Amino acid sequence: MTTINVVRSVMKANDAVAAANRERLEQAGVLSINIMSSPGSGKTMLLEKIIPILAPSHCCGVLVGDLQTTRDAERLHPFASETVQINTGTGCHLTAPQVAEGLDHLDIARLSFLFIENVGNTVCPAEFDLGERLRIVLLSIPEGDDKVGKYPTLFQKADAILLTKIDLLPVLEFDRGRMRSDLARINTRAPLFEISSKSGEGMDAWLAWLRQQRMLMSVPGVPPAPGRRVP
Amino acid sequence: MTTINVVRSVMKANDAVAAANRERLEQAGVLSINIMSSPGSGKTMLLEKIIPILAPSHCCGVLVGDLQTTRDAERLHPFASETVQINTGTGCHLTAPQVAEGLDHLDIARLSFLFIENVGNTVCPAEFDLGERLRIVLLSIPEGDDKVGKYPTLFQKADAILLTKIDLLPVLEFDRGRMRSDLARINTRAPLFEISSKSGEGMDAWLAWLRQQRMLMSVPGVPPAPGRRVP
Repeated sequence: MTTINVVRSVMKANDAVAAANRERLEQAGVLSINIMSSPGSGKTMLLEKIIPILAPSHCCGVLVGDLQTTRDAERLHPFASETVQINTGTGCHLTAPQVAEGLDHLDIARLSFLFIENVGNTVCPAEFDLGERLRIVLLSIPEGDDKVGKYPTLFQKADAILLTKIDLLPVLEFDRGRMRSDLARINTRAPLFEISSKSGEGMDAWLAWLRQQRMLMSVPGVPPAPGRRVP
Repeated sequence: MTTINVVRSVMKANDAVAAANRERLEQAGVLSINIMSSPGSGKTMLLEKIIPILAPSHCCGVLVGDLQTTRDAERLHPFASETVQINTGTGCHLTAPQVAEGLDHLDIARLSFLFIENVGNTVCPAEFDLGERLRIVLLSIPEGDDKVGKYPTLFQKADAILLTKIDLLPVLEFDRGRMRSDLARINTRAPLFEISSKSGEGMDAWLAWLRQQRMLMSVPGVPPAPGRRVP
């Protein structure tokens, strides 16, 4: 019982900070996106590709979560207007207070997009609201077509799903029908984009959706994501 | 402070059960192996390949941890002598009590090897002793050459490291030198095997090592793994 109470109080404290982060970001007109996936699904490479495309018209900030090393922040530094690395030590996910601290190091007034690259993990990050407006989940072809069914919570809470590394479809066995069938059981509202950051395939449709989400922010009364319940 | 105490007491309770599991498995002469990696690194396929090779001379049991679905157990059922699926719900790793319960469903007296396939996660499983004799960590080529540095705890505690899916080296960028250089900083005692479950490359050396570990079990005074500190 004690454990449960502690977990509840940790979640409650996280949620209070997440609400404050959300308020702060919405007030500043920043579209914040929590990006989650397994390690190596292509989160950083995705940002390396899309930020230079968005940058001419939109100022992009990045918060990068990792246990150790500043490698992802170093990779993204040349592209993003502002980049902050959050090292979690042994922490298996980002928390709202870590994001709040990250926000203190960014000039959010000038940002249009804030990408929050979570720790590579398909379980724990799903439980923690960071105050983001959108949750994007990546699944890469090499991980296999059974992962939606095996990690349902993460995919259930996604506002969009990116099937990445589709350039590897010719060399790997991946049954897209099986994956879509699993997805149909748990999340029918999130659009699925099939992309390759390497070849650029599918990027246009996903970027168009992302830009649309940014535009919808300025329309009064539109909820954070298509049909998404505000946490 | 409260949180830390609760975490400590959870770990203490886990470790007590892990010690009992270890005693039970060692007494029965079973070589138990905790297999950890990201989702989709090839844990299940590895077992599909090695169990039929070991099976003629050694009885193999499998405990499979997953949040949901019994897919991995179903895949391994035709090969292993005994297979038990443990569904963790939202749990991001296996615990010693879950393994203890799994052992109750196995006839361990007849087993030579017990493979414990942990939940796909490169952070949380590393913290939990299950009572295993060996810890094997997989890293697949598609995940990228930066993962040892980014998830050091998992690799630090490994008794052997398998670089999997090396058949993809010709089509993906992966700097083995960079990975080995990260590894040299955190774990110099664990052997590294480069393998492909698909092509069979590298399987002989890794299986020879595994058989040797099984033989060493019957030599009095040999520690659980080469140079490994007993938890």
